[in-house]
Amino acid sequence: MRRVYLDNTAGTSLLPEVREAMMPYLGDIFGNPSSLHDWGDGAREAIESAREQVAQLIGADSEEIIFTGSGTESNNMAVKGLALAHQNRGKHVVVSAVEHFSVLHSAKTLTKWGFEVSEIPVDKNGVVDPDDVRRSLRDDTILVSIMHANGEVGTMEPVQDIARITIERNIRFHTDAVATVGTIPVNVTDLGTDALSLAGNQFYGPKGIGALWVKKGVRIVPLLDGGVQEGGRRPGTENVPAIVGLGKAAELAEANMNERIKVLSGLRDRLLKELPAIIEHVITTGHPENRLPGHASFCVQFIEGESMLMLLNSEGIAVSSGSACTSRALKASHVLIAMGLPHEIAQSSILFTLGIDNTDQDVDYVLEAMPPVVERLRQMSPLYDKFIKTGKGGS
Amino acid sequence: MRRVYLDNTAGTSLLPEVREAMMPYLGDIFGNPSSLHDWGDGAREAIESAREQVAQLIGADSEEIIFTGSGTESNNMAVKGLALAHQNRGKHVVVSAVEHFSVLHSAKTLTKWGFEVSEIPVDKNGVVDPDDVRRSLRDDTILVSIMHANGEVGTMEPVQDIARITIERNIRFHTDAVATVGTIPVNVTDLGTDALSLAGNQFYGPKGIGALWVKKGVRIVPLLDGGVQEGGRRPGTENVPAIVGLGKAAELAEANMNERIKVLSGLRDRLLKELPAIIEHVITTGHPENRLPGHASFCVQFIEGESMLMLLNSEGIAVSSGSACTSRALKASHVLIAMGLPHEIAQSSILFTLGIDNTDQDVDYVLEAMPPVVERLRQMSPLYDKFIKTGKGGS
Repeated sequence: MRRVYLDNTAGTSLLPEVREAMMPYLGDIFGNPSSLHDWGDGAREAIESAREQVAQLIGADSEEIIFTGSGTESNNMAVKGLALAHQNRGKHVVVSAVEHFSVLHSAKTLTKWGFEVSEIPVDKNGVVDPDDVRRSLRDDTILVSIMHANGEVGTMEPVQDIARITIERNIRFHTDAVATVGTIPVNVTDLGTDALSLAGNQFYGPKGIGALWVKKGVRIVPLLDGGVQEGGRRPGTENVPAIVGLGKAAELAEANMNERIKVLSGLRDRLLKELPAIIEHVITTGHPENRLPGHASFCVQFIEGESMLMLLNSEGIAVSSGSACTSRALKASHVLIAMGLPHEIAQSSILFTLGIDNTDQDVDYVLEAMPPVVERLRQMSPLYDKFIKTGKGGS
Repeated sequence: MRRVYLDNTAGTSLLPEVREAMMPYLGDIFGNPSSLHDWGDGAREAIESAREQVAQLIGADSEEIIFTGSGTESNNMAVKGLALAHQNRGKHVVVSAVEHFSVLHSAKTLTKWGFEVSEIPVDKNGVVDPDDVRRSLRDDTILVSIMHANGEVGTMEPVQDIARITIERNIRFHTDAVATVGTIPVNVTDLGTDALSLAGNQFYGPKGIGALWVKKGVRIVPLLDGGVQEGGRRPGTENVPAIVGLGKAAELAEANMNERIKVLSGLRDRLLKELPAIIEHVITTGHPENRLPGHASFCVQFIEGESMLMLLNSEGIAVSSGSACTSRALKASHVLIAMGLPHEIAQSSILFTLGIDNTDQDVDYVLEAMPPVVERLRQMSPLYDKFIKTGKGGS
């Protein structure tokens, strides 16, 4: 049976070149980068070189890069650390309703610490309106955190336009760019934010490694206390092999980005165009054009997303029905709900997130597999049964 | 030139068997453990199996194991998370003066959150007196955090005796066992604590991975907010290869522990006995007997530890002069100061931490290299010059 992995938002494969780059650091070069002897030197040089590679990918200075254990940790550190560092100026924080839970729940924790949080709504495509952000700002607003693109629906957010507002008001702005860094061009100067999160497992780098870019001069309170690693901002022995892998993945992402975008967008556009043409009652979620290259997401009405996922899995196809971080919570996506979709439609969500190994044959295979899967599930669906009898859809 | 690595407390090498176990998860099995399809299944099964291996090593239930990114993260989560979870009963926390900075500085952060922290002193060998802990307890004491063994001086702490007191008083007790788990037998039931930290890079497992054991039924507030991974207690995509490596390292540690202890203790005892016999004005630091198997630590009077480290490095020998986490801070060790050593002696600290690859020939080589290094440095030392002239030592 063909095996087609279309769940790259949950995590990409590790490129062989990245694995090769990591291998010496899983072997002879095992020293602690903080050690002052030769064993430490090799490890330290490796992480500093990786820091430059990551900085280069996003147009930053290497000393502005803090390595963390995941995109989730980067987001936690940004939201909590920037809020704590600036609380003398006020305790109001602004986020969007479609942020990843690592941002939303960090903001919720801030409310327990005496902060107030405003949640900006999105339109039906999942887009934040910069004017809504502007209107939400108060004299005591110290931090805005709005993502660069949404991993569940692929929508790009107007980060640059929001940054113009936050710069004017001298308010710190963090963007969760986990879905974009390594996938599309990201330049921190162009974006205009003060901090930006990224993660290795989104662009063919290792798991267990993320980074937070913090603009020079911007204060941040560390999330972890301990040693003096990462300029005292993220203690704990550095995960040398993963850091090296992240650096290599960054280098490769930069070198191959245009080609990757071309291929992924082509495959994505086929899914976006052809799937709704061969299956009835399919709603495309997210922005129709302004979306991530490899990202095609839909709601297939009258069906539970999870059951589609299971049946496709039995055909050798990996997709997801929302964020992997919450897949086991079995709730309707907060992103789709924020976009105004009713619960019963939100629960029919399916995401195809393409990777650089995917081909037109993979897309053919999926387009062939989908109709019988949908047909089979709809025959069993009480919602569909009711729709057929009454002639009324779920939307 | 012979190369002798004697800095295993800063980090061990990765065992080839551990690397082999990790390789599939740096290759074909790249799925996200939270994904509901086959790609997720392989990853999920792997981390659950590793969880059992780690639990087995410390006599715990696998569901009590939370994987983290480092020993530092485990300690942060334990100290902050247990304090926050029990603050309704009081806001007083007890630590020892010789804890790792990830505990001490976490406790300092607690004071910013309105907690009070008492620091228990140690004796000249670095040992905490359980009676001091008992006397420090108040009606509003909710947490004690005292390490199992100290990585800088090798001293074992009386964790079991302290646990008898905390159990009697119904106070939560966390122990930082980063220096002991995988090195000597550790059984959480015998110890009697409520939480325990461990780290992979201390027993031939990977960097970037730690674990926190939290006893069933003990409440803890997560350090990170986000998805539902690790039972909702540590969000972020799991670092599958590192988790698998930690599991394998745990299995091998258990299988080979007695043999390892025998070899390491023998080499350690040679250093402890022979070094002070061939070099004048050497003080052994830490407990003379009740110490970690591979751990020999000294103060070599009238010399800066850093300079010894550098000269030994030029002879191919890796040692350290304190915790790698603070090596770049170039301050006298807080552990040695707490043990009552004057600053000028504390700064002459040197640690030999042996690993399973070390041999008697390595120890021979070090014992040969040390006297000329010490002699050379003492000739340049103003302190030694003064001592020679006045006939008065630094102690």
